[in-house]
Amino acid sequence: MASEELRSDPNLGVNSSYFYDDNWYISEPMGNLDDMNPDAISDCHPTVPYYLYHACMAPISLAVLLGLSLLIKRKHRYKNCLGGAPGLLSPVHFLEEEGNKGLTVAVFGILFSSLCVLVLDANPLPFISSSSPHSREYWKIMALLYYPAFYYPLIACATVRHRIGYFFGCLLSWCHCVVHIWQKVECPESPKIYRYYSLLSSLPIILCLMVLSLWYPVQLVESFRQKRKTVGEVPGNGYYKEYLKNILAKRPPKRSTSKAKPSVFSRIQSYMRSYIYTPQEGFQIPLKLAVSLAMAVIAVYQVALLLLVTFVPCIQIVRAGMTKEVTVLLVQFGLVPSENTAGLPGDKELATAKHYVWSLEVCFVSSLVISCLLTFSMLMRSLVRHRSNLQRLYRGAVLNVFHRPRKLQPSQQALVCWMCFTSFQAAFTCLGLLIQLVVFFICTVSFTFLVVIPLQSGTNTYLFKIVKNMWPFWLTLVVSVIVQNLLTHYCFLKRGHLPKELTNRRALYIVTYLLFPVNVLVGVLAGIWRMVISALYNVVHFCQLDVSLLSHGAETFDPGYRTYCYYLKIEVSQSHPAMKAFCLLLLQSHSPQGPKGLHPGDIEEGVMLMKTKQLASKTSQQKQNRARWCLAYTLLHNPSLLPYRKGFLANAAANGMQISLGKP
Amino acid sequence: MASEELRSDPNLGVNSSYFYDDNWYISEPMGNLDDMNPDAISDCHPTVPYYLYHACMAPISLAVLLGLSLLIKRKHRYKNCLGGAPGLLSPVHFLEEEGNKGLTVAVFGILFSSLCVLVLDANPLPFISSSSPHSREYWKIMALLYYPAFYYPLIACATVRHRIGYFFGCLLSWCHCVVHIWQKVECPESPKIYRYYSLLSSLPIILCLMVLSLWYPVQLVESFRQKRKTVGEVPGNGYYKEYLKNILAKRPPKRSTSKAKPSVFSRIQSYMRSYIYTPQEGFQIPLKLAVSLAMAVIAVYQVALLLLVTFVPCIQIVRAGMTKEVTVLLVQFGLVPSENTAGLPGDKELATAKHYVWSLEVCFVSSLVISCLLTFSMLMRSLVRHRSNLQRLYRGAVLNVFHRPRKLQPSQQALVCWMCFTSFQAAFTCLGLLIQLVVFFICTVSFTFLVVIPLQSGTNTYLFKIVKNMWPFWLTLVVSVIVQNLLTHYCFLKRGHLPKELTNRRALYIVTYLLFPVNVLVGVLAGIWRMVISALYNVVHFCQLDVSLLSHGAETFDPGYRTYCYYLKIEVSQSHPAMKAFCLLLLQSHSPQGPKGLHPGDIEEGVMLMKTKQLASKTSQQKQNRARWCLAYTLLHNPSLLPYRKGFLANAAANGMQISLGKP
Repeated sequence: MASEELRSDPNLGVNSSYFYDDNWYISEPMGNLDDMNPDAISDCHPTVPYYLYHACMAPISLAVLLGLSLLIKRKHRYKNCLGGAPGLLSPVHFLEEEGNKGLTVAVFGILFSSLCVLVLDANPLPFISSSSPHSREYWKIMALLYYPAFYYPLIACATVRHRIGYFFGCLLSWCHCVVHIWQKVECPESPKIYRYYSLLSSLPIILCLMVLSLWYPVQLVESFRQKRKTVGEVPGNGYYKEYLKNILAKRPPKRSTSKAKPSVFSRIQSYMRSYIYTPQEGFQIPLKLAVSLAMAVIAVYQVALLLLVTFVPCIQIVRAGMTKEVTVLLVQFGLVPSENTAGLPGDKELATAKHYVWSLEVCFVSSLVISCLLTFSMLMRSLVRHRSNLQRLYRGAVLNVFHRPRKLQPSQQALVCWMCFTSFQAAFTCLGLLIQLVVFFICTVSFTFLVVIPLQSGTNTYLFKIVKNMWPFWLTLVVSVIVQNLLTHYCFLKRGHLPKELTNRRALYIVTYLLFPVNVLVGVLAGIWRMVISALYNVVHFCQLDVSLLSHGAETFDPGYRTYCYYLKIEVSQSHPAMKAFCLLLLQSHSPQGPKGLHPGDIEEGVMLMKTKQLASKTSQQKQNRARWCLAYTLLHNPSLLPYRKGFLANAAANGMQISLGKP
Repeated sequence: MASEELRSDPNLGVNSSYFYDDNWYISEPMGNLDDMNPDAISDCHPTVPYYLYHACMAPISLAVLLGLSLLIKRKHRYKNCLGGAPGLLSPVHFLEEEGNKGLTVAVFGILFSSLCVLVLDANPLPFISSSSPHSREYWKIMALLYYPAFYYPLIACATVRHRIGYFFGCLLSWCHCVVHIWQKVECPESPKIYRYYSLLSSLPIILCLMVLSLWYPVQLVESFRQKRKTVGEVPGNGYYKEYLKNILAKRPPKRSTSKAKPSVFSRIQSYMRSYIYTPQEGFQIPLKLAVSLAMAVIAVYQVALLLLVTFVPCIQIVRAGMTKEVTVLLVQFGLVPSENTAGLPGDKELATAKHYVWSLEVCFVSSLVISCLLTFSMLMRSLVRHRSNLQRLYRGAVLNVFHRPRKLQPSQQALVCWMCFTSFQAAFTCLGLLIQLVVFFICTVSFTFLVVIPLQSGTNTYLFKIVKNMWPFWLTLVVSVIVQNLLTHYCFLKRGHLPKELTNRRALYIVTYLLFPVNVLVGVLAGIWRMVISALYNVVHFCQLDVSLLSHGAETFDPGYRTYCYYLKIEVSQSHPAMKAFCLLLLQSHSPQGPKGLHPGDIEEGVMLMKTKQLASKTSQQKQNRARWCLAYTLLHNPSLLPYRKGFLANAAANGMQISLGKP
């Protein structure tokens, strides 16, 4: 829907600029126009056209995908998996911590930017060169499914964790990258919306492709170099160990907090800390959250770019084409003040009109900048809140996060919400930026034309006149509020008496009764403030899924917050780092090196993992006991793990291919 | 401010109707107009004009007030109060439960209705007959302070609790009532806004005055009849006893709740119960809350009346005066569909235009009705929530009400908010109704002109065309959501396994990746839904002070909710029924009958108060022990009382004149 709105905007922009070209300036010397539109942008045909690029790359990608599936010979390793047939390659292990967040973010970024370009495009599918407007809807829907499949091998090559995968990844990413850059170098301009819009909007794609074409070679080189080391390694193991060590480490005893109030500086510091994300030792943001926030940032870029190139060139054309004839209309409508009441407006009125249009432009750009900055700071704050919420849930403090008891179990709704989470974050950011821009634009324009311009020129002082006429009213309200506060402080509360007590009750009742009508007017002002603050709060926090826009008790009706809660449920129940660490220990004990019993090295590792002090050498029995005690201790402090422990361990052993997928 | 808006509305209405009269229908036969405006309403002069009424009643009221203050000879009883001078009469004991809520509500109703009439009036003060527009502001502010003082004796006469007070109350209320009714019978019509507006808007005043002129005689007669009985009675004592008995009564053991889910019927019942207020044994809504809600109801009446008489007569005049010349304009603007493209519109087009105007009227009236009903149901729900919140706070369950720890102590802010509470409730209800009307009017007009009229006439089917063009898009979104749900249910969750566990993780990741672009579009729809639902929620709950419009954590920035929280603090800390009951017991033990020690009858009464079983006669020592034990038990179960107990008892003994005021 928003994309539909977006599409209508640029058309409007194009139409309105044509409108000015054809009708308004028909009597103008053409030279004036040429400064604005120097020449019609000719259709540019790159050496490798889009359809050829897609026609070549799509089969190659498919071949790579099939080749990889066969090459890693999955059927020899997991007989029970899909009847021994070569399994599909997983694009990304969302619930594991694998350390290649950059890759996932890059591919999702390519996908999302393609989506942004696609929604506005007349030819959404590259193979259908000139689609009719009627069938365009169908091709767009096809394109929504085609692009993810087209870029699939770029991400799937990495999850194989094999040097052949990295090699194919190199080839594919280089091809994509070279073609994209070549096309943009040959044809930097396009007639759509604004001459450089096409170039600017595909910048994220090119950047992401460059990241990929650097990442794959590095991985390829490393896979040759660290051949031995990576054999027994389970992806993400390092992070889980780190997390557990951090959790089980003895904290230095907290210094007794002095009872004096915290200083202003420390308060400001802690307030700033709730807005600025600083990495924390032993904790990583989950993959899906990182991808969501990266998509949100790309969404802000794309929407802001589109709004900028739609509005600013148009209004610049309007300003340049502003003539005395147009000014007559504005003067007659009373929009521009004029000194000579009857005759044609002079140069002064023309300059004023141009100044007004320029003010509009400044308002638009400044409100766009404010919206973008606010959205970024809100996203940053989301990140801080995500981390603290996850840490609380890992600790089992469900009430602190959801404010009501909830079971951390997967359910159908929860899983569907988990799947949608990234998309919702991106879509909400787009919409939020649009709403913010509209609201801030209205605010800045009102402020400019009601306050700034009247102060500059001394005309159109409507607002000042109203305020001047109503000053007795404002004064009464202010005085009544001050009087009530003073009376309360000096008469109705006993001074120097803690806890404070009421006194002079009769006078209190008399004042309450007598000031009732005045307080109704104060209440009307408070009501308007309530309206404004709630609207502003909702507009500013619209892009945050971790904040409910509804009040406590009705939170589940907010689709954004609901999705976030369900996402947290799945994330915490399925990828608790402590649980993952235990599962990995169990898998290693069942690994081919020690088929039946427990290999002494594994026990050693398990104990080392949880050891916080260096111990003297003890017998194996003592070590086992200690390991068991540590397990009990961990479970006691992470009660949310308890219900899943037995079930999950059994499952993990049964279909453990995801976790041990990387072993060659 | 809202009152300012209100004032501008009727002016607009009057102006626009004049506009139609003077310009549009100048060529029409005048007979047509006369049906609408049969004759100009002549200025009506009642036998007792307003200025005479006020000039007589104001001195009489003052004399009554002074006389009462002297007559009850306060200086003989309380030497330490204001140096023995005759004390001012308290208008109403807001923090006591006195059982004369009707009286307080009636006087506040008179005051609030006067305020509504006053804000729109050209002559706000009755003594200044023709004020200039410039000085009107000042007179209005004076009037805001004059009216409460003018009606002060009507309420103060009752708080004396003496037959002389009741007698003066009778006289005053009868005078007021007779003059008001007489004036309205003589001059039912007025030229302001709408001929019957003045009559309809003063109906609440007349009703409230009638309540007063019935209540005072009844009290006078009762004071003669029950002379003996009321001597030792402390006001509100009955309620406090009732409350304690109810609290301390042994509950019948709850039946073991069956583990089966509650039936649909019982669910609906409990949901309805949260909207419909039914009185509960042993609990009364505090006086200030009752007054606030009554003011809210009067506010709804006044605002709805004003909106109705401003809009409906005007649009009826427009409809009656609709001619073919006007229809030409509407046809040319494309607002009314026409079959003959060039010529003058025929009767059919005229009928269509009239039908459209009639539809507007229907939309307005229906949205006004919906707004009023919604506001009433929200106020009713407030009442239910107020009661449950108060009961929780009496129990000491602060966390259940405020969702965070708070101290229930009076503070300056809290006391100011307590004073403003009633006014804020009234003002917020006015504003809320206005906002609701605007929103619902826009919604019903859009629905009528985009759905109903196109379905009736088959023209202007813009919406249907858009939906028809976009059906592949909608279908894709619906199908993708259904597919995700089905896949989750049948593939990604293990069936018949509790707690549910994830399975087929690789397929889950593939589907999540492939459906990312489609889910972005689903997310845009969800975002629009989020915007709509949060806006609607805020609009509907605007009049409720017990609901915060901001999310959990930012609640204190909402002025309405903040006022409510502070109000609750004062109410609970200062008039906890159990505390009041203990204070009364203590006061009775210090009463003149037993000046030093405890009178055995008082102990007896204290024990009787808390006795739940009939006991055999025991010695006085045993009774004392039992009373102490009961006190400890009550305090244990009402921990919020603990901090105030000693301090309050001492204070209550020191300045106890409020509580024992009624003793003659």
